[in-house]
Amino acid sequence: MPGGLFITLEGPDGSGKTTQMERLECFLSRRGFTVECTREPGGTPLAEAIRQLLLEPRYGPIDARAEILLYAAARAQHVAERIRPALAAGKIVLCDRFTDSSIAYQGYGRRLGIELVRQVNNLATGGLLPDLTLLIDVPVELGLARLRGKGPADRLEGEDLDFHRRVRRGYLELRRLEPQRVRLIDGTGSPDAVWSQIEKVVEPWLEARGG
Amino acid sequence: MPGGLFITLEGPDGSGKTTQMERLECFLSRRGFTVECTREPGGTPLAEAIRQLLLEPRYGPIDARAEILLYAAARAQHVAERIRPALAAGKIVLCDRFTDSSIAYQGYGRRLGIELVRQVNNLATGGLLPDLTLLIDVPVELGLARLRGKGPADRLEGEDLDFHRRVRRGYLELRRLEPQRVRLIDGTGSPDAVWSQIEKVVEPWLEARGG
Repeated sequence: MPGGLFITLEGPDGSGKTTQMERLECFLSRRGFTVECTREPGGTPLAEAIRQLLLEPRYGPIDARAEILLYAAARAQHVAERIRPALAAGKIVLCDRFTDSSIAYQGYGRRLGIELVRQVNNLATGGLLPDLTLLIDVPVELGLARLRGKGPADRLEGEDLDFHRRVRRGYLELRRLEPQRVRLIDGTGSPDAVWSQIEKVVEPWLEARGG
Repeated sequence: MPGGLFITLEGPDGSGKTTQMERLECFLSRRGFTVECTREPGGTPLAEAIRQLLLEPRYGPIDARAEILLYAAARAQHVAERIRPALAAGKIVLCDRFTDSSIAYQGYGRRLGIELVRQVNNLATGGLLPDLTLLIDVPVELGLARLRGKGPADRLEGEDLDFHRRVRRGYLELRRLEPQRVRLIDGTGSPDAVWSQIEKVVEPWLEARGG
């Protein structure tokens, strides 16, 4: 049995990440792989409790440093309690958002500095990186328009347009820096059109694992 | 009006920190100083919510990296929302535990490495250090014996004896490295005996502020 495979999905809210992740999970299961689906922030009881702190507006403005440290704390628990054990058991781990989200949202969006975010990420993960990252890219206006149908904005969604533009720029820069790991998926089309791109990117990884 | 003064109280649970902090607050108020009393982890609504996560046993074993990042997140919010504004307003800030607790408990107690803990502390505080730290030292057995009268142990108090010995060693090492800032108070005597030491250490600071 080969070791595990760690795939992350990245992109703004409204990019269709969640829909595509469900599809990918079904696809992998039908091919006979054992899949562990999870998300950040969250994935364990402690990390989900941290997620609640981060996403609820009731605590007022969260200091930028506190925010990145909370994401990192949730990630450390998630990696130790769930992701590493699943990979060690040979599973395919699908994770909705991971370290690249911190770099895009806190590093670029909040301008906290890429190097700082990388250090905190590294501390949280102990150096664990995804094998493959599917970056679903949509223009900022399209992502936000899709969200508008989904009820009230949470704290991050309510940020201004410039913030979301910096996040997108950050994601695209990550893809430029690590083109082998971070694969760009055009998220503007129909769910089927997006899925067919993902299938093409994932397929070689599965063949390598005999799936 | 002079700038603020930042005093922290450190030492194991059972050292009498809380009693002495109340006494110090009264003493300073009677001398006409405006005092802001606070504690870590905690001190703001978000940081108190993080404190709950840290001290409740219901989330099971907390990963050591997650733990230090949670303490740091609570500290970042506390510094930004409460400590820095109080110091900027010229107040005396008294804080029950601060960065030295992380070094003693996580760095030495959990053996996470002093340099790592320093980096995370620095990230959380943006470099803010106490002007004066009162380290109330008691032998491990005495501190634990005093606690035994106080109801069930929380997660940290329940650690083994070696853990608490490493914590004490860490505190004493901090005092060796920064003798000007970290002042050793013998916590084995009566509350009055401990207080008279604290009064002597604090007095010159107050004279310098015209109190």
